[in-house]
Amino acid sequence: MTGKTITEKILSDHSGEDVRAGDYVEARVDEMIGHDVTGPLAIDAFEDVTGEDRELAAPDSTVFTIDHHAPADGVKAANNHNIVRAFAEKYGAHQYEINDGICHQVMIEEGFVEPGDLVVGADSHSTTYGGLGAFGTGVGSTDLGTTFATGELWFRVPETIRFEVHGDLPKGVYAKDLILKFIGDVGFDGATYKTAEYAGSAIADLPIHQRLVLANMAIEMGGKAGIVEPDDRVVDYLEHQADLEVSIDPDLASDDDATYEAVHSYEGADLEPQVAKPSNPENAVGVDDVVGIDVDQVFVGTCTNGRYEDIRVVADALEGEQVAPGTRLIVVPASGAVYEKCLETGVLEALVAAGATFQSAGCGPCAGYHQGVLGDDDVCLATANRNFPGREGSMDSRVYLASPATAAATALYGEITDPREIETERYDDHATADLGVVR
Amino acid sequence: MTGKTITEKILSDHSGEDVRAGDYVEARVDEMIGHDVTGPLAIDAFEDVTGEDRELAAPDSTVFTIDHHAPADGVKAANNHNIVRAFAEKYGAHQYEINDGICHQVMIEEGFVEPGDLVVGADSHSTTYGGLGAFGTGVGSTDLGTTFATGELWFRVPETIRFEVHGDLPKGVYAKDLILKFIGDVGFDGATYKTAEYAGSAIADLPIHQRLVLANMAIEMGGKAGIVEPDDRVVDYLEHQADLEVSIDPDLASDDDATYEAVHSYEGADLEPQVAKPSNPENAVGVDDVVGIDVDQVFVGTCTNGRYEDIRVVADALEGEQVAPGTRLIVVPASGAVYEKCLETGVLEALVAAGATFQSAGCGPCAGYHQGVLGDDDVCLATANRNFPGREGSMDSRVYLASPATAAATALYGEITDPREIETERYDDHATADLGVVR
Repeated sequence: MTGKTITEKILSDHSGEDVRAGDYVEARVDEMIGHDVTGPLAIDAFEDVTGEDRELAAPDSTVFTIDHHAPADGVKAANNHNIVRAFAEKYGAHQYEINDGICHQVMIEEGFVEPGDLVVGADSHSTTYGGLGAFGTGVGSTDLGTTFATGELWFRVPETIRFEVHGDLPKGVYAKDLILKFIGDVGFDGATYKTAEYAGSAIADLPIHQRLVLANMAIEMGGKAGIVEPDDRVVDYLEHQADLEVSIDPDLASDDDATYEAVHSYEGADLEPQVAKPSNPENAVGVDDVVGIDVDQVFVGTCTNGRYEDIRVVADALEGEQVAPGTRLIVVPASGAVYEKCLETGVLEALVAAGATFQSAGCGPCAGYHQGVLGDDDVCLATANRNFPGREGSMDSRVYLASPATAAATALYGEITDPREIETERYDDHATADLGVVR
Repeated sequence: MTGKTITEKILSDHSGEDVRAGDYVEARVDEMIGHDVTGPLAIDAFEDVTGEDRELAAPDSTVFTIDHHAPADGVKAANNHNIVRAFAEKYGAHQYEINDGICHQVMIEEGFVEPGDLVVGADSHSTTYGGLGAFGTGVGSTDLGTTFATGELWFRVPETIRFEVHGDLPKGVYAKDLILKFIGDVGFDGATYKTAEYAGSAIADLPIHQRLVLANMAIEMGGKAGIVEPDDRVVDYLEHQADLEVSIDPDLASDDDATYEAVHSYEGADLEPQVAKPSNPENAVGVDDVVGIDVDQVFVGTCTNGRYEDIRVVADALEGEQVAPGTRLIVVPASGAVYEKCLETGVLEALVAAGATFQSAGCGPCAGYHQGVLGDDDVCLATANRNFPGREGSMDSRVYLASPATAAATALYGEITDPREIETERYDDHATADLGVVR
């Protein structure tokens, strides 16, 4: 037989079978996560499929967060929070509170996820864990509930589409720009039920917080997973950011003779900052095509780009400056630890002084629930992952997606602005180093 | 004729007539304010009563804030924000943004209100301005809209009920405890359409931020206004907190032979910390009666007790400690300036380190909209002004009202706790000094 992709290796390992793309497996799941929207539905499913003496298959690997409506923005949300709290206490699962942050960021910071793990979450951006070399994927709440009970889930082993970026990235071009470019090239359904595997020297040079962006948005081209081969940077990251010691199996990599459904190859030097126009992430264009468009709101945050490094890019650009009149800058850190890091390092203070509205940690307005929902004619540029009609509020609002650097430049001028117009000495750091929640 | 109350003097001055309680007047209004909930309704009324060439009677005294749903927690809220923004820009009114803060705090900090002014706001806590010796009152949105057009409004001159507190207040007893005691004694309708006038040596000793609490909650006993005779502390406060130079007319005080409907007299030494039990502010009891009741959430904020001094009390109590497990502490500063002051002085950092969730400025969960809404069985102790059924969320939730000091002690132990149990050196400052937004 030919070699295996990293996806095939992880699913072989977790099923005890030697499988290839297209095979069906019953696989052991290492971690499972639900949040305040999906958690109560998964709890219902768990209770439906279990008997009187029900228990969690792996309480220590079962995690709940309160992030989408945190703090509660309505009675239903508050009741859902209480359902999650009561269930986690009763069955011994982990449960994180309001302001602890977004599920994916919490899972990583708290050291739940290791390279090679199989992680399922009742949240579509559970692909994020691929930035650590894990196979992470979003599942429905019912699937999650049954996984709570059994610790296993069935999968069709996905084919892999490989995105290679060679050489170096130009200044002002981040992982967010790469992933928008990839999605633009293959379309929003271009990787449906496939793994998007990211490789090449430019990817290998990316710090982990940037790799997480690539993995996170795999779902925006339909991907079952997004994955970057783990290396020593992952080891360092987990040690410093998550207080977790891991070693990486040298075999946890796609074989040279693995089978890919397609390979898309890019030269780093050819890439430029991208913006996804309303109302689909696949509407990615070079920033030049959209410069000058007025925006009412700039939103920095989410599981895609709400990490310390992301927020610091914005603070660096705005330090000593003011957000453009008539434009609102809303910043929502991805976790409480990110919030505290922003506080300790003066990033929060710089942003508030520049006129930003800084919220407690969570998903913010990303899904249109609260903390900056858009009205009918509002135009927003967001560091988020989705800009479908109505995603952040009104069906008549318009959302552009971009990197934190582009968001910073846009907040400064009140119109979409090329981040390369902004000189900030420390931009380079962010492209090359993980500065996040150092313990 | 007999002498006049300060209320009768202000309404005489603003109507050009020598009036007494019971008279009807058409009075000139000095400042008028609407927020993101009432502003759009007032705008509708303004447009209904004005013709084609409509204009504001006094654009420079017409103020809009975005505070109740800030940042927007839904499409309707976002659209209301945009209505307010567009109107203020078109007609030249003042308009404050998300995170600028609650209308009453903004009006005071920005120096709109002077002693002796007549202020109307489409918000029931517009009585707050009485802490500066102004006559402030809440009006309906329609009344506000017509006042936008005419600069005038009719009033029935209110009778006055006087609350006198003599001597000194014991440590741990704040203005919030006084007003809860007063409301408990006269009932939630005990001052309906009256002015609640606060006087006596203990009141004269109160710093302005505490007097504002007394005035603010006059409405909770039905008061048309709440007022403290202005003095040099008001002059100092406005100079330092609002960058406003005022002098006070010595005649801006109730005459010795003024007529009162009732006088309630207290000895400061007899007073103790108060807690209003669910679900009415009139359910005030001494804290001893409720100590030990478990709380799920402590909320510090609102136009009543969301000032810097209030939040600092909580930070002082919690510095180096942790909020009790299972209890959420939500802090929402009353204004962006208060937020920045908390940031500059380490108060925000101390609270976040203690486990608090710190929000951007505004009304927070006070009216049950967002940022910490209560679920069905949630018990909350809040520094807010109202605890009617469902006020902060579910009709089945329960809210206790108390001072920031009681809130701090309660957050620390997770159950209602007498603030006198907590030793904090700087508590005294808060009772005697205005530390707020010094310019």
